[in-house]
Amino acid sequence: MCHHCVVETVKERMLSRRSFFRGAAAVAAAGAVAPLGALPAAAQSLSITGKPVDLTHELHPDFPTFFGEQQFFPEQKFEFSKNGFNLFEIRVNEHTGTHLDAPLHFSADGDSVAEIPVEKLVAPLVIIDIREKAAANADAQLTPEDLKAWTDANGPLPQGACVAMLSGWDAFVDTPKFRNADDKKAMHFPGFHVEAVQALIESGEAVGIAVDTLSLDFGPSPDFATHYAWLPSGRWGLEGASNLAALPAKGATLIVGAPKFRGGTGGPTRAIAIG
Amino acid sequence: MCHHCVVETVKERMLSRRSFFRGAAAVAAAGAVAPLGALPAAAQSLSITGKPVDLTHELHPDFPTFFGEQQFFPEQKFEFSKNGFNLFEIRVNEHTGTHLDAPLHFSADGDSVAEIPVEKLVAPLVIIDIREKAAANADAQLTPEDLKAWTDANGPLPQGACVAMLSGWDAFVDTPKFRNADDKKAMHFPGFHVEAVQALIESGEAVGIAVDTLSLDFGPSPDFATHYAWLPSGRWGLEGASNLAALPAKGATLIVGAPKFRGGTGGPTRAIAIG
Ligand SMILES: [Zn+2]
Ligand SMILES: [Zn+2]
Repeated sequence: MCHHCVVETVKERMLSRRSFFRGAAAVAAAGAVAPLGALPAAAQSLSITGKPVDLTHELHPDFPTFFGEQQFFPEQKFEFSKNGFNLFEIRVNEHTGTHLDAPLHFSADGDSVAEIPVEKLVAPLVIIDIREKAAANADAQLTPEDLKAWTDANGPLPQGACVAMLSGWDAFVDTPKFRNADDKKAMHFPGFHVEAVQALIESGEAVGIAVDTLSLDFGPSPDFATHYAWLPSGRWGLEGASNLAALPAKGATLIVGAPKFRGGTGGPTRAIAIG
Repeated sequence: MCHHCVVETVKERMLSRRSFFRGAAAVAAAGAVAPLGALPAAAQSLSITGKPVDLTHELHPDFPTFFGEQQFFPEQKFEFSKNGFNLFEIRVNEHTGTHLDAPLHFSADGDSVAEIPVEKLVAPLVIIDIREKAAANADAQLTPEDLKAWTDANGPLPQGACVAMLSGWDAFVDTPKFRNADDKKAMHFPGFHVEAVQALIESGEAVGIAVDTLSLDFGPSPDFATHYAWLPSGRWGLEGASNLAALPAKGATLIVGAPKFRGGTGGPTRAIAIG
């Protein structure tokens, strides 16, 4: 879908308030039952062990984007050989590279990226491996069944968790397969099924989700259903994560180095795990 | 010093290769003796305990800058009420707000912000409290004697450490005292004395330093002596840290959420400590 089409589609759905939006409202109501105001586990004293792992792609002008257009523009303002030091000015769309979606990205007045409490930026990392079905089907989604398979194997979700989808898509970052657009410009890559994030909101443990693709929603999504269900509930999403395969399914900790832009809806993020 | 004067001064010093530059070269030579290539402690398995503390100032258009001019320009491209989602494009000088200085900032070919190994972005945090002398003298510097007082009280510096100057200057961030410019535009705030960073390079434990002011050098520095001694040795500097007073002198861990801009000399950074 092109830039213009995305905006038009979202706008139309917003105005007509079709099913997905009623769905989101229902979820928000359900979310209010969950202990949204409760302090997640990270506010307690943490005990973190392991080695640091960088989950961040390097950001450069040709980095693939959701809209398909360049979103990162560095300009060198000072140069060592001439000025004695190097310095760039950066122009960048907040939603570029490995980056955070704050609640404000898909809500009228949710938390900006600067307002997310730091306790929610340090999160036990739950990694759900859907590489097998993603290899078989680019439009695979992480479903409630995948969540159940993880808890069956690993026990309950930790309080304050980030639930990450490991689809293996980070390997395609510098190839056309990262966007995987078809003849009609629809993209094809994995994402979270809206019912999976609804289940996470209802159970209440997770403060964030992460994907190794361009969007929380799967590529062909026509309506950002997952974004609209998840972000307005006061939770964040990390898009474009890399290197999740280097970590265990359970036991690592994610530190979300999102920029603290006042009023920002997200931004290029250094995501570091320890595990 | 104005923007233009800074550049002219640095350029002149570069070209004439006066004493501070010879000094930097000598330090670089000394630095080669230190185990620069050795893996810092963080590459080993870490054990981190404590609560998360945000060391990051919120970044906004009026955030004070070294050059005294605006360096952060957000532009809203999509608006929830009209488009169904919020999104900004950001234009920002890399060296704005709480931010990292990569080795490349003051060297011809040092590590860019994307090239700093992740092991060096997770660092035992050493906090040296010079608030008393900074309150008495805005031009106070953290000296080798201050380093010695810390090790006398707390034992040897941890391997892979970040040594942070706590001057209390973060409290002035939204006031003219943060830059504290005089009639001749010289600024007055604390920083690291060049001899302190030379001592840190020689002893070899530290991978980074942090300040709660606008520069690694103290305000009236005419020559960036500390920048030129420290950054070309392959180490980083965090400028504009906040909230260091919330942490103990020893025992906390810093996670440096610097953006992973290819070829970047630094960038607005989410600095999170656990301690
Ligand atoms: Zn996004
Ligand atoms: Zn800087």
